[in-house]
Amino acid sequence: MKALVINCTLKKSPEPSHTEELASQVAARLDRLGVQTEFVRAVDPAIAPGVVTDAGDGDGWPRVHEQLLDAEIPVVASPTWLGRPCSVAQRVPERMDATMSETDEEGRPVAYNRVAGVAVTGNEDGAHHVISGISGALADIGYTIPGQAWPYWHPGPGPGPDYLNDERGRDWAHSTGRTMADNLCGVARALDEHPLKTSG
Amino acid sequence: MKALVINCTLKKSPEPSHTEELASQVAARLDRLGVQTEFVRAVDPAIAPGVVTDAGDGDGWPRVHEQLLDAEIPVVASPTWLGRPCSVAQRVPERMDATMSETDEEGRPVAYNRVAGVAVTGNEDGAHHVISGISGALADIGYTIPGQAWPYWHPGPGPGPDYLNDERGRDWAHSTGRTMADNLCGVARALDEHPLKTSG
Amino acid sequence: MKALVINCTLKKSPEPSHTEELASQVAARLDRLGVQTEFVRAVDPAIAPGVVTDAGDGDGWPRVHEQLLDAEIPVVASPTWLGRPCSVAQRVPERMDATMSETDEEGRPVAYNRVAGVAVTGNEDGAHHVISGISGALADIGYTIPGQAWPYWHPGPGPGPDYLNDERGRDWAHSTGRTMADNLCGVARALDEHPLKTSG
Amino acid sequence: MKALVINCTLKKSPEPSHTEELASQVAARLDRLGVQTEFVRAVDPAIAPGVVTDAGDGDGWPRVHEQLLDAEIPVVASPTWLGRPCSVAQRVPERMDATMSETDEEGRPVAYNRVAGVAVTGNEDGAHHVISGISGALADIGYTIPGQAWPYWHPGPGPGPDYLNDERGRDWAHSTGRTMADNLCGVARALDEHPLKTSG
Repeated sequence: MKALVINCTLKKSPEPSHTEELASQVAARLDRLGVQTEFVRAVDPAIAPGVVTDAGDGDGWPRVHEQLLDAEIPVVASPTWLGRPCSVAQRVPERMDATMSETDEEGRPVAYNRVAGVAVTGNEDGAHHVISGISGALADIGYTIPGQAWPYWHPGPGPGPDYLNDERGRDWAHSTGRTMADNLCGVARALDEHPLKTSG
Repeated sequence: MKALVINCTLKKSPEPSHTEELASQVAARLDRLGVQTEFVRAVDPAIAPGVVTDAGDGDGWPRVHEQLLDAEIPVVASPTWLGRPCSVAQRVPERMDATMSETDEEGRPVAYNRVAGVAVTGNEDGAHHVISGISGALADIGYTIPGQAWPYWHPGPGPGPDYLNDERGRDWAHSTGRTMADNLCGVARALDEHPLKTSG
Repeated sequence: MKALVINCTLKKSPEPSHTEELASQVAARLDRLGVQTEFVRAVDPAIAPGVVTDAGDGDGWPRVHEQLLDAEIPVVASPTWLGRPCSVAQRVPERMDATMSETDEEGRPVAYNRVAGVAVTGNEDGAHHVISGISGALADIGYTIPGQAWPYWHPGPGPGPDYLNDERGRDWAHSTGRTMADNLCGVARALDEHPLKTSG
Repeated sequence: MKALVINCTLKKSPEPSHTEELASQVAARLDRLGVQTEFVRAVDPAIAPGVVTDAGDGDGWPRVHEQLLDAEIPVVASPTWLGRPCSVAQRVPERMDATMSETDEEGRPVAYNRVAGVAVTGNEDGAHHVISGISGALADIGYTIPGQAWPYWHPGPGPGPDYLNDERGRDWAHSTGRTMADNLCGVARALDEHPLKTSG
């Protein structure tokens, strides 16, 4: 079983990403549970705007799309800007939108029988909204969202330091990250053993 | 396996509820799949504001709380007002909040290994937001949200007629309702056969 | 010029309300600017569910509705539950919905030429979403929302203490509260001197 | 007085944009009120991800930023994808974020004394959420949001045709567009005559 963290930081590699660091906590736990995690930073391959699988012309999405089809457990990791999912974290589900018409042998969206979660960092409030918004988009696309499948971190009232610069709240964030990994893995395995049946 | 539709219409019984009618489509499909559905109208028992399981003093919640513990599949059905989940549909998860500390024999929230969905009607736009908001709250509480576990209906640009007064779009709404029932039931059964393991 | 704080705490008087305390900071500043503020706690008068101005039968809304018509500057103050506006803070705009068809002498909603803001407390993340959601509903009803017309407080990553139990971040919250009061008052006075003209 | 429509369609020029067409209705009314409107399509100049005013390296934002400083009335026009503001419509406020520290002679964000609105099209539900989300971000940055400062169009329950391909609901959308223009213009003029005073 494979997981794919799509890190939606606004910063290109090799700049350090707070969001990637928090998501690594989830990956570490997934690893202990026997799930291998690949990471991709969505700003690196220059993903074109649009809602098709291949926008041509240097579009970085087709490669991510392949990684996505290869993963039972995608995780969208997003920083918080203005209290909302960042632009890159909206672009990813926009491009995933096309997978709704890519169907399995039973005519269902390829996302069926896969599970997804969200990891959020920020230097201010907004995490619940970011989680609900991205999870909602992923569920629309067909992914199952396990209960409590998110960790988040931000420094609380008003703008402040970033995740890597403040130890406060880190234990709590890591503990929710472990719960997320457990629940992603648990639901993914349940669906692997008992996949959704075709409607009829 | 049992489902519970908590109808969050603002109208007391026996006033007809558009939201109940749409949710009935989901229940009919669940019935075909061998799942029995009970309905409760959340404004009938006068649910007190608060975040505890029993607010005393004529509080209608404790009875709903019992029904909830008895159902593997709760469905929150909400009308849309001002483009948002209605006040009753926010009160229900507020009262469910206390179940986070009601744990199973392995110390996990009672909502674990249960699945939930949302059904939405309205006389105007807002359904995606209502679905994401309520689903997000239910996932926080511990419920798993299957992919595409919602039907919605509203008449499109600007205010207009209600669900029972306009046949347009009804087939689409009912078809999404059947998909919802299939996915709720499929994920609930997968979790019943392969429940989440205790973290450790 | 008058302001009205509608405190949407889930707790009846005389229980202390964190939300009321934060809103008092805004009121203190408004007072210095020559604006008198009245407070009402929305759970005290038992506001019935619905979208009409008078739901009969002991409904507490008609009295609040009168206070609202008397205030140029309403402020909705809400705690955060599950990262969202609380049920009472959704009920208030639901009942205000009916004012859209209560028009001034030029046929416009009574909320025109009035300004509104939102104050938020919580023991966890969610403030930006609560602010956007309630402000969005108030703007739909016709109120103008000045820039940066909100203070918020919560303790940062994960659940924690409430506003009155933690001094951290309080200065920042109070400073945003003063900005809110300045902006509410400034825009209200601009509209008082230069009211919106009738369309034609 | 000048308005600037930032069209956040995912499609580059010269592809026709439904969102631009709806926003043109607002511009036509602004023109009648003596306000000139400029249009920019945000995907044309390749706006880099980030939260600074100039991301260097072919970044298209600095030019838009200049146009923005020149306009008293920005309008963010967004299509709806997955029921949410599109990625481009999140990128624009992200880049505007830096203007919070660009201050006027009295030390206040440059957005103070300016007003903003949102125009939304889609082939499905989501407009209220798109409006609240973008308006909320713009208010955070310092813009005043007049009451009812939005038009929206989508075809109602489930996915369907786009704005230019369906006449249904168009009159309603255009009428809300005229209201938006009136309210943007009215509040902008009130603030022009009675600008916000410095706090002190």
